Amino acid sequence: MSAPFFFKRGAGLSLSEIAALVGGEPRAGADLDRRISAIAPLDRAGPSDLAFLDSPKYAQQAAVTVAGACLTTPRFTDALPGRVSVLKVREPYRAFVEVTRTLFPDALRPSSLFDAGGGATGAQVHPSARLENGVTVDPAAVIGAGAEIGSGTVIGAGAVIGQHVRIGRDCAIGARASIMHALIGDRVIIHPGCAIGQDGFGFVRGPRGAHKVPQIGRVIIQDDVEIGANSTIDRGAIRDTVIGEGTKIDNLVQIAHNVSIGRHCLLAAQVGISGSSTVEDGVIMGGQAGIADHLTIGAGAMLGAKAGVMHNVPPGARWGGYPARPGKQWLREVATLERLARQSRGGVRDEESE
Amino acid sequence: MSAPFFFKRGAGLSLSEIAALVGGEPRAGADLDRRISAIAPLDRAGPSDLAFLDSPKYAQQAAVTVAGACLTTPRFTDALPGRVSVLKVREPYRAFVEVTRTLFPDALRPSSLFDAGGGATGAQVHPSARLENGVTVDPAAVIGAGAEIGSGTVIGAGAVIGQHVRIGRDCAIGARASIMHALIGDRVIIHPGCAIGQDGFGFVRGPRGAHKVPQIGRVIIQDDVEIGANSTIDRGAIRDTVIGEGTKIDNLVQIAHNVSIGRHCLLAAQVGISGSSTVEDGVIMGGQAGIADHLTIGAGAMLGAKAGVMHNVPPGARWGGYPARPGKQWLREVATLERLARQSRGGVRDEESE
Amino acid sequence: MSAPFFFKRGAGLSLSEIAALVGGEPRAGADLDRRISAIAPLDRAGPSDLAFLDSPKYAQQAAVTVAGACLTTPRFTDALPGRVSVLKVREPYRAFVEVTRTLFPDALRPSSLFDAGGGATGAQVHPSARLENGVTVDPAAVIGAGAEIGSGTVIGAGAVIGQHVRIGRDCAIGARASIMHALIGDRVIIHPGCAIGQDGFGFVRGPRGAHKVPQIGRVIIQDDVEIGANSTIDRGAIRDTVIGEGTKIDNLVQIAHNVSIGRHCLLAAQVGISGSSTVEDGVIMGGQAGIADHLTIGAGAMLGAKAGVMHNVPPGARWGGYPARPGKQWLREVATLERLARQSRGGVRDEESE
Repeated sequence: MSAPFFFKRGAGLSLSEIAALVGGEPRAGADLDRRISAIAPLDRAGPSDLAFLDSPKYAQQAAVTVAGACLTTPRFTDALPGRVSVLKVREPYRAFVEVTRTLFPDALRPSSLFDAGGGATGAQVHPSARLENGVTVDPAAVIGAGAEIGSGTVIGAGAVIGQHVRIGRDCAIGARASIMHALIGDRVIIHPGCAIGQDGFGFVRGPRGAHKVPQIGRVIIQDDVEIGANSTIDRGAIRDTVIGEGTKIDNLVQIAHNVSIGRHCLLAAQVGISGSSTVEDGVIMGGQAGIADHLTIGAGAMLGAKAGVMHNVPPGARWGGYPARPGKQWLREVATLERLARQSRGGVRDEESE
Repeated sequence: MSAPFFFKRGAGLSLSEIAALVGGEPRAGADLDRRISAIAPLDRAGPSDLAFLDSPKYAQQAAVTVAGACLTTPRFTDALPGRVSVLKVREPYRAFVEVTRTLFPDALRPSSLFDAGGGATGAQVHPSARLENGVTVDPAAVIGAGAEIGSGTVIGAGAVIGQHVRIGRDCAIGARASIMHALIGDRVIIHPGCAIGQDGFGFVRGPRGAHKVPQIGRVIIQDDVEIGANSTIDRGAIRDTVIGEGTKIDNLVQIAHNVSIGRHCLLAAQVGISGSSTVEDGVIMGGQAGIADHLTIGAGAMLGAKAGVMHNVPPGARWGGYPARPGKQWLREVATLERLARQSRGGVRDEESE
Repeated sequence: MSAPFFFKRGAGLSLSEIAALVGGEPRAGADLDRRISAIAPLDRAGPSDLAFLDSPKYAQQAAVTVAGACLTTPRFTDALPGRVSVLKVREPYRAFVEVTRTLFPDALRPSSLFDAGGGATGAQVHPSARLENGVTVDPAAVIGAGAEIGSGTVIGAGAVIGQHVRIGRDCAIGARASIMHALIGDRVIIHPGCAIGQDGFGFVRGPRGAHKVPQIGRVIIQDDVEIGANSTIDRGAIRDTVIGEGTKIDNLVQIAHNVSIGRHCLLAAQVGISGSSTVEDGVIMGGQAGIADHLTIGAGAMLGAKAGVMHNVPPGARWGGYPARPGKQWLREVATLERLARQSRGGVRDEESE
């Protein structure tokens, strides 16, 4: 197989344009007219690629790189050979991202997979749905009665938009996502396979098993939210489930009914948040972390990967472990147990041999 | 955006009808002719809404609520202002759910998202599939050869029903679910994105890597089961994978091949059950809990959230932790370690500073 | 309901053919002309079924089985009644799988669910896509511009193949899978609902929240890989995300951007691998295990179920626990804590009663 490049490369940028964009200072001898058309890591970059260097860990790669240009700090400048045009910046990775965003504007938001060239082919749009001009509907998508979709939004192939759902402008709804009972803001990105707005998990015990509690709330997703592939967000039972502005959610995350998530949170993959819990603004959760029901995670808190949260977490705290506790306490406990087990090794060995 | 209400409100109920329905005793001054058309939490409820109060935690909300009516216990009756028509009941939440079920019968089961008004539009039904009268097939659904579907069942948009699959009556199959090699009972609810009946994860090691073990069993889902969005249930390798009557499964749950789950179990989100394990009747599992392969979880056992079960669990036991152990023992161990780490803090600090 | 059998039974095999296939030695009295048409566990097998016995755990079932034939070791031969035709082999399960593969060749790879009999019905294939002869496209599948698909491959119902994606020969792409920005080898099996090639989870913090880092890498899936239902594999940010030859991945697994997985690995369900980590050849991961970002798991390492890996793991090591550590150390620590908590029970009880 040859290797297709999935994003269009434009005319690129000259090194002087890049220097202006990121406020970089060229190293002596840098070729300011050099054209950069793509980005790459140091070990893969070629003469028309921009790389970055911000850690001594990559000194060896830096020494032999044939990258056309490289962003780095004054400290690492000498690690790069003379053939590389170097731009000195304070935060190389941040500058690198800035250039990448400029070089690949198409990659800032998922686009139509089908390029139908106007007009939905093989999609089913209910006659009572209202689509503004400039909505793209990919094949096999289904849009229900009374749904409203704003201009610039792309509805991916096979996506299902339920009755009366409202989706704002410049959104990207991934292939095979399903969205029901939901109001969605502008510039929201929902990745493939997401399930949004289905019934929450609510039952009361009766004489003959569990009885379903009707779930009559909604899902509210504010502007600039991004939600990863195959994640699930249930609608509220009695309140709404809310995802605050600018919050980014990774793949396979579960958000239960009545959960309220604040603004500008980051939730890594496979996180689970149980019913009626509140996550305040700016919270960061590591992968596979879980929060029990009816808890509050204070603003700016950080929960480590796999943390199992069974109590409220104060604002700004860093917690980890299972059950989750303050991170320093957790690590101290881990170290204590390791030491105790080493000390008592003889005794334990006896137990094991029984 | 204005706020659409996704469920139809009917004529509602008078307070006297509600009192009769739940066996409630009106507080003096309650307006028995008041019409209630919806439900809401105390802090959101308006004059035509019913709320409930069953905990001192919500006393402040109760004091200022403008709910038209409220269900509560004799103990909390005085916490509600005179303007609220109060019905006294023994179990306010249970009564509240009962009223909700009566007010919103449409919310007891997911319905068609498309309202096609008879006849499948843009769905692909194999000519040899047999659908009873009164089956609804939403757009872009695909039904394979020889499949059989009972009356009253809704097949959601984009759902895929494999060859010879049988689905009973009054089921709701969610958008984009896929169901293969499966027999499904009556009144089963399967939420969007579920994957049911694909190959289990079975391999034997050979000289050139892993060889696939053919998976020739089925998935049997009994009556009144509910399965959450994007959950996965593999078919059996040699036996069937079975989900017992009335069992409710949340989102993103994994059920491996040959697993047998009993009746009336509750499995919270992101639970995983490994191959050939047996979960007996009435077991409750918290979110993100996992069970290793070839184990038995006894009837009525409760496994805490994130429990990592590596041994058989006796009937009625409550286990938690990782590895999972009896819950009281686990909590005692957590407390012991916390105390030991606090005591030895000086020594550990030395280690940390190395 | 009667019970349909989802896989075609062929003419079956005679016992002498089975003996030749697996190198089995018939017990005295075995009926070498007996025809075997299917397989079953001892407790379910009938006269035309083959079973196997490789553990004393099933001695009771063996004593009363009416299986037509059974594979077992010389050690267990006498546990089987005279009516069963017994073949003695060294590894009964391995031999049983070998026979199963021969009896059910259709089960080695998922096939079309629709049996359209040639020609895609209701699928949307972009005119510029190139499909070799012998590609099957099930209904409601969508294939984007410039995609290339090799002969013998089945594209499942509702699957979405993005622009310029390349899929090799004899692959099975499950119903409702979505594949974008990816190159896929030969004989790859992707189960229903997989999401492959969407944006990785990459952001930089800016003054007004998180800014998206464009993800311009790809997903490379080598030959003979299998990926479970509803799993998610993000494309690389700057490198490619790579899944090595022969690796098998279970359901609901998350593979983040830039991850590199070696050859012949086995990843159980709900595993999560964070960004830029490397998993070398032959690694085995238990269910719900997680790996933090930028780590290396050495070749042949085994990570226990639910392990939370926060450090590099040496080749061949067996780790478990959270945070993950060498498995023996972990179990010793678990035993030590159990003992200490038992010893100090009085003191802890005092604390609990406070």
